[in-house]
Amino acid sequence: MPWFRNFIQLSATFSKQSPSSSPRRAAAAIFVTRSPSLTQLLRHFSTHPQEKYPGLGPTKGDEKPRVVVLGSGWAGCRLIKDIDTKIYDVVCVSPRNHMVFTPLLASTCVGTLEFRSVAEPIGRIQPAISREPGSYFFLANCTGVDFQNHQVHCQTVTEGVETLDPWNFKVAYDKLVIASGAQASTFGIKGANEHATFLREVHHAQEIRRKLLLNLMLSDVPGITDEEKRRLLHCVVVGGGPTGVEFSGELSDFIQKDVHQRYAHVKDYIHVTLVEANEILSSFDDRLRKYAIKQLTKSGVRLVRGIVKDVQAEKIILSDDTEIPYGVLVWSTGVGPSAFVNSLEIPKAPGGRIGIDEWQRVPSVQDVFAIGDCSGFLENTGRPVLPALAQVAERQGKYLAKLLNHLGKAGGGRADAAKELDFGSPFVYRHLGSMATIGRYKALVDLRQSKEGKGLSLAGFVSWFIWRSAYLTRVVSWRNRFYVAINWLTTFVFGRDISRI
Amino acid sequence: MPWFRNFIQLSATFSKQSPSSSPRRAAAAIFVTRSPSLTQLLRHFSTHPQEKYPGLGPTKGDEKPRVVVLGSGWAGCRLIKDIDTKIYDVVCVSPRNHMVFTPLLASTCVGTLEFRSVAEPIGRIQPAISREPGSYFFLANCTGVDFQNHQVHCQTVTEGVETLDPWNFKVAYDKLVIASGAQASTFGIKGANEHATFLREVHHAQEIRRKLLLNLMLSDVPGITDEEKRRLLHCVVVGGGPTGVEFSGELSDFIQKDVHQRYAHVKDYIHVTLVEANEILSSFDDRLRKYAIKQLTKSGVRLVRGIVKDVQAEKIILSDDTEIPYGVLVWSTGVGPSAFVNSLEIPKAPGGRIGIDEWQRVPSVQDVFAIGDCSGFLENTGRPVLPALAQVAERQGKYLAKLLNHLGKAGGGRADAAKELDFGSPFVYRHLGSMATIGRYKALVDLRQSKEGKGLSLAGFVSWFIWRSAYLTRVVSWRNRFYVAINWLTTFVFGRDISRI
Repeated sequence: MPWFRNFIQLSATFSKQSPSSSPRRAAAAIFVTRSPSLTQLLRHFSTHPQEKYPGLGPTKGDEKPRVVVLGSGWAGCRLIKDIDTKIYDVVCVSPRNHMVFTPLLASTCVGTLEFRSVAEPIGRIQPAISREPGSYFFLANCTGVDFQNHQVHCQTVTEGVETLDPWNFKVAYDKLVIASGAQASTFGIKGANEHATFLREVHHAQEIRRKLLLNLMLSDVPGITDEEKRRLLHCVVVGGGPTGVEFSGELSDFIQKDVHQRYAHVKDYIHVTLVEANEILSSFDDRLRKYAIKQLTKSGVRLVRGIVKDVQAEKIILSDDTEIPYGVLVWSTGVGPSAFVNSLEIPKAPGGRIGIDEWQRVPSVQDVFAIGDCSGFLENTGRPVLPALAQVAERQGKYLAKLLNHLGKAGGGRADAAKELDFGSPFVYRHLGSMATIGRYKALVDLRQSKEGKGLSLAGFVSWFIWRSAYLTRVVSWRNRFYVAINWLTTFVFGRDISRI
Repeated sequence: MPWFRNFIQLSATFSKQSPSSSPRRAAAAIFVTRSPSLTQLLRHFSTHPQEKYPGLGPTKGDEKPRVVVLGSGWAGCRLIKDIDTKIYDVVCVSPRNHMVFTPLLASTCVGTLEFRSVAEPIGRIQPAISREPGSYFFLANCTGVDFQNHQVHCQTVTEGVETLDPWNFKVAYDKLVIASGAQASTFGIKGANEHATFLREVHHAQEIRRKLLLNLMLSDVPGITDEEKRRLLHCVVVGGGPTGVEFSGELSDFIQKDVHQRYAHVKDYIHVTLVEANEILSSFDDRLRKYAIKQLTKSGVRLVRGIVKDVQAEKIILSDDTEIPYGVLVWSTGVGPSAFVNSLEIPKAPGGRIGIDEWQRVPSVQDVFAIGDCSGFLENTGRPVLPALAQVAERQGKYLAKLLNHLGKAGGGRADAAKELDFGSPFVYRHLGSMATIGRYKALVDLRQSKEGKGLSLAGFVSWFIWRSAYLTRVVSWRNRFYVAINWLTTFVFGRDISRI
């Protein structure tokens, strides 16, 4: 524990004498002269370059079997957390070194929560990955999988380092877990990728917050027309699922509480419009949906039913040719398979996901599993493809970690060693319900197992309290749980932070 | 107070019935159909564009006199905080909407503190600027001053908004306060501006943190040579003033506590080198300097005395042709006049700063004052140019606010109205002492008024405690004071956050 180490060091510091009371001890330290330090320095850099090693080869008898996990989302991180690192070495390959606590991401766009409160570094989720000699985190994208030779091909992410080109390397696996997620789908609508911001990563939330604050400030500068001011301060959200609705609710809270106080000059110019082709929150109980519509409308969110056909730099165009000018455009219309998943030549599930059986295995190849949004049950399993939800992904990660631990204990950890083993019970998904906040201390909680099922569903302040409590307990680390609570407290007491950094 | 407002709203929420107990009320809200909402929407955007207004004209008799402040650093923000907004309207023009608490900026580069804990939005420093009809914050650069016509020329900062070109506007002033600061000086050394990162703004600290974390991760990927790994993880700091030393201390703390735990695979490859042409911490007592050298060396910081003559993408070259490869290069060798200050055609103080008299006035023109790093006493005042320190700038801002409030009360607030008035006592600077942390719960505190003067000077843990307490009380807002304390606490308990976001 760092605090214990720090405490020891602090105690040691206390017991030492300060140099102010003993100047002679301090005087013993002299400035290092040029020659010796430079000699040291040159020696430090004189090591001959090692021969380039193309990656991690197959594990040997004296090493632990290696589980390679592609991705660091809900599914991959839950697996990494639960896997028994006494049995396996874990290698995680992902272009980001943290997991995003997605249900709270919308709150960070306006500063209700801070970005770091919803980002959980992999090393905190599974400390072995930073310390064990055979476990690694590689900041890289997986470019392909050689299923026959049990290895993945990767390329480093060197963004931001001007002196280093990305390079390729290979990692051999005993077990491969594909948990690379899905990507935001734009249904091929022209301009959506170029002009809209998605809401899936921390950098998306950062971009939205910076743009929103910039537009608020620019609208106050002399020389801008009223029309341009209205456009800059028009926040348009496309997609009426939980993410779109929660973001709209957060925005209207921000406007009513912080913009009215901190940007009083332009408060009458800012508006939120939510565009949805069908019903908003279609997975929720009818009664809850109607409540949400009423509350959002009351908060000043304009609900527009329409289909977007074109996205331009300053406006979106609906299928009936209505033009909606915008200053900030957030796109949240669900997800589809990523380019990486499309490139894999294995049988797919309906919708283009990686096809899996009831044990999360990719049946056509050995030792390969897929979990989370990138995976779906093959048609021959007779099961439906599960929705792209955090709770599905997390449950699959938990299940697969248990399965792999079981195989490892039974001696099936190595490549091709589990063929004859019993895989135990298949994965069964039981929906725990859905929740969504809608702003102004209100939320929806729908605990029915399906749209037709029976169960508790409620809306209002009590739901909001349940929503906050439930997510607070789900936050992975104690550090972030503490910060989420502190952020909520300071937002309540001091308002949201409007520094544009 | 936001918390009070929130409390009222929460109480109101409690007393209302939840729709789950009254479904009929909720059912009354129906989804807004397409036609009405779109009509509203179109009406919302149909306002005819106003004629372009080029800026704020001279204040009229029924308006308050206007103080225009250029800049949002220590000097400008202290003035904005203290100015009497019952007497004056305040317009602040700056390319950033917050003040940076610079003494704690080095701590944010490694995550000891978070970025937002050291950024104070102008609207929090002076709430009138967001609410009063005649007070504004303009996100813009000042491009020139028309002293004869009492107006400043500005250009908006539209960085990040693809649909908006920057535009020019003018602001007339009754009193002008130039507090635009200085810029990092590189002494014309080739490549320094391109390859080094300064440490003056929050985005600099963000860049350093991202680069450091990226390099730590890349060094762990297979296929990198030992030499390249050493280079990537070599942090070189040029400049041995308080900023350079504090940053080196923070870095070595980060390495000893967090890298050893979170990046155990590469912990033996990371090193810090501090390059200084003369003595480090030259303004401090000799005894303290020697103590700092001893402590830094103990923490693994290599101290190199040398003059940088060339900066390349992967290495710096000293005047004796020694090459020092680096992965992260931080440049902190003091400041010089900015391009804006150079462009002003008014008499300058030694060193190129805006020349001022004892009342912080620019004597050659009416109603113009300069404070902070951009200003210096004219030679004919017989006073030395003050050092570029936060405490100088803040004291000048405080002094000038008092002076302007005095003039305003005496009826001299308008342009050209203070010519005959008594300006009161001139500004007198009394140095309160210097402080610097050096890592490992150690700091230096030098309370002598000058290098030759007498007074308390001490180093060690007690100094570190004084350092932390002193800066905690200096943080401007209660919100940030709270967050600085919380950040220190969580760094102690959980370690520093290593998410690369």
